Amino acid sequence: MPHTHPLATKANRVLETNAPSVYALLSGRGREYYFPVTGILSQGADADGTEINGSIGIALGDDLEPMRLSDIAKSIDLPPRQAFPYAGAYGIKTLREEWQASMKRKNPSMTFETSLPVVTAGLTHGLSIVGALFLEAGDHVHLPYPFWDNYAMTFETGYGAELETFPLYEGEKFNVAGLKQALKQEKGKKILFLNFPNNPTGYAPRKNEAKEIAEAVCDIAAQGSDILVIIDDAYFGFVFEDDVYPESLFSLFGNLHERVLAVKIDGCTKEDYAWGLRVGFITFAGKGLTQAALDVLGDKAAGVVRGTVSNASNASQHLLLKAMRSPNYQKDKRAGFDTMHVRYQKITAILRQPKFQTHMKLLPCNAGYFLCLELREGLDAEKIRQKLLKEYSTGVIALDRFLRIAFSSVPEAPIEELCERVLKACEDEM
Amino acid sequence: MPHTHPLATKANRVLETNAPSVYALLSGRGREYYFPVTGILSQGADADGTEINGSIGIALGDDLEPMRLSDIAKSIDLPPRQAFPYAGAYGIKTLREEWQASMKRKNPSMTFETSLPVVTAGLTHGLSIVGALFLEAGDHVHLPYPFWDNYAMTFETGYGAELETFPLYEGEKFNVAGLKQALKQEKGKKILFLNFPNNPTGYAPRKNEAKEIAEAVCDIAAQGSDILVIIDDAYFGFVFEDDVYPESLFSLFGNLHERVLAVKIDGCTKEDYAWGLRVGFITFAGKGLTQAALDVLGDKAAGVVRGTVSNASNASQHLLLKAMRSPNYQKDKRAGFDTMHVRYQKITAILRQPKFQTHMKLLPCNAGYFLCLELREGLDAEKIRQKLLKEYSTGVIALDRFLRIAFSSVPEAPIEELCERVLKACEDEM
Repeated sequence: MPHTHPLATKANRVLETNAPSVYALLSGRGREYYFPVTGILSQGADADGTEINGSIGIALGDDLEPMRLSDIAKSIDLPPRQAFPYAGAYGIKTLREEWQASMKRKNPSMTFETSLPVVTAGLTHGLSIVGALFLEAGDHVHLPYPFWDNYAMTFETGYGAELETFPLYEGEKFNVAGLKQALKQEKGKKILFLNFPNNPTGYAPRKNEAKEIAEAVCDIAAQGSDILVIIDDAYFGFVFEDDVYPESLFSLFGNLHERVLAVKIDGCTKEDYAWGLRVGFITFAGKGLTQAALDVLGDKAAGVVRGTVSNASNASQHLLLKAMRSPNYQKDKRAGFDTMHVRYQKITAILRQPKFQTHMKLLPCNAGYFLCLELREGLDAEKIRQKLLKEYSTGVIALDRFLRIAFSSVPEAPIEELCERVLKACEDEM
Repeated sequence: MPHTHPLATKANRVLETNAPSVYALLSGRGREYYFPVTGILSQGADADGTEINGSIGIALGDDLEPMRLSDIAKSIDLPPRQAFPYAGAYGIKTLREEWQASMKRKNPSMTFETSLPVVTAGLTHGLSIVGALFLEAGDHVHLPYPFWDNYAMTFETGYGAELETFPLYEGEKFNVAGLKQALKQEKGKKILFLNFPNNPTGYAPRKNEAKEIAEAVCDIAAQGSDILVIIDDAYFGFVFEDDVYPESLFSLFGNLHERVLAVKIDGCTKEDYAWGLRVGFITFAGKGLTQAALDVLGDKAAGVVRGTVSNASNASQHLLLKAMRSPNYQKDKRAGFDTMHVRYQKITAILRQPKFQTHMKLLPCNAGYFLCLELREGLDAEKIRQKLLKEYSTGVIALDRFLRIAFSSVPEAPIEELCERVLKACEDEM
């Protein structure tokens, strides 16, 4: 095996000294990662502002502006220097600061120190970076069932970890006991993965449940376990009921216990309706972590960015930054939220009508883009999906015994008809 | 360890039957990868065109157009449906076809079958995908020295492989004997990595050398070795001398021998002056590979895309596609090439003047964005770089005993002054 790079050794020493639990949680690979501050990248940064700069790895015209294809330049309303050069592996500094500030606005109890968010090429990339830094082959990642199917590709296929599930619900509530038991019984490294608002169910913990989840994790940490809590905040902000905990769980885990490291994966993809731009963020926090330790985690994450994609789209980052600084930002976000909220109220009211209860049960939901219907015994979700496609020209997703319906993508007007068709397809099958 | 997914087993059987050498070259992880055709993605595709579509994982307004931030929408001249939704893990089909056609235009001897290029989030992502599919911890990746430093982060830190170098040059020529010896002596899996035009040297093999390289690899394959040839074509097309082999080496390796699998990593980043958009491609070919085997390789690559970044930027892909279809495309590309060509001729003519030879030697170069100066013994490249920064306001990159100069980023006018400053800095040190 290649020798550990001296910069990785230096970074690891900071963690061993300042944050032994974080060091313990890192995978072997995670200990090898570092940010190459002595390489081409930093030499390029040194040369910023020189009279003659022959260090830059892009092509500049004789006017010192980036060379570019005129059709691309005409199609992006950004200065060429914002759209065409590389963004740097950490991402654009001003965007990272803007995102961190927005995180704190959206999560008022996030008053603790965090690492400066590192820009990723979308949220899945953030998850993959977590895998690179923390997952050893055979590690168990505990998460509620049901879950988004791509986690298996990222964590199992990519890193040889195993997804271990506990049921999301206990009756109509989040299954805190199940979570606690799963972590308690784990003999190896304790890794908890939480995605709220949840894909596929559209559930987010209520205020008291969020508190109980944090207490459960804190208790287990207090008994002497190091715990990694991975928080996938893809659907952050789409919360439609007053009793839901309105912040990211990162607010609770980021300052919970010295043995708990929280990693927040978020971005503009779903929150800001910009799926195709591929801008995400990865942010670390943990009680008692020094700025030096937080910096090391950010450096290692940026090292993974460098080694896996070099950097995220500069054009996308500048487009997001421009939008976030615009007076339209909050208004546009709110308009989308309001549309989704109306649909949520309508579809849940319909699906809770008595006539639906014979064939299906709406799983508890209060947030996000989706909801799930659990079909009564004897009904095959995949068959119902096929029937809906072929006989009712209606698209839904079948997951085991559930149908997932994205009210995010269905206008208010046909929502009632959608529900009726699902019911009819079930009735046909009985 | 998680069980191999049935779709991976099915994919592997195709390779075992049709392409045993390819199967042998895959890493354990590479054998686990598959494209999740039965998951949420394909169910979503099934529902395309339904009257009521509740399967889509993005948010649509009541007008069925993607929700979006008005400031981003105003800043991209693309229909919202091209900029905002996800692109799909394989990338946009029309772009993949357009890129494949352009590959064949640029490389007239690429008359063999290839996989349809899969879109990656930039070229480094393509390299990382190769690592995921083919590299086992401890595998040796043979490549000429010097090389781009980020390969170490991608292949060594990311996958535990080891970079094994042979000297790029033998005198003024490419070191075919060194390449042959390196592969011959390799006891394990034989993996060759070639990056031409080369970063940092700006060298590309001459026509006869390219032929000799291919013959060397063919000989070793014929002796019973499976060989993976990874071709990083980042700087493709910037070739400034008539005796250089003008095509990608993929043209030679893609139909060379049944035991040779060629992987081509390329994209618009450098070729099309679009560094910040992050669009690359990964393409496979090998003598005798069936369409089914090529498809499996594309599926596995798209599986890695799905698990590591979900998909590459849709906006960037559509911007590239739009530019490639424009009558300005060839003209813009040519204008950039001509500018670089003039600079190349000027800087190489200067650096070959006798007065420079006392202190430095221009390494053979004929292509790309860069050139390298090897400093005479006793001169420390890092010291010269620092002196150039501080006393001459001039930026270059120091790599071991070389200075890398990017004529890509220096206008023609100050090139002579740049060379003089490098010379003076060296003279100061003697």
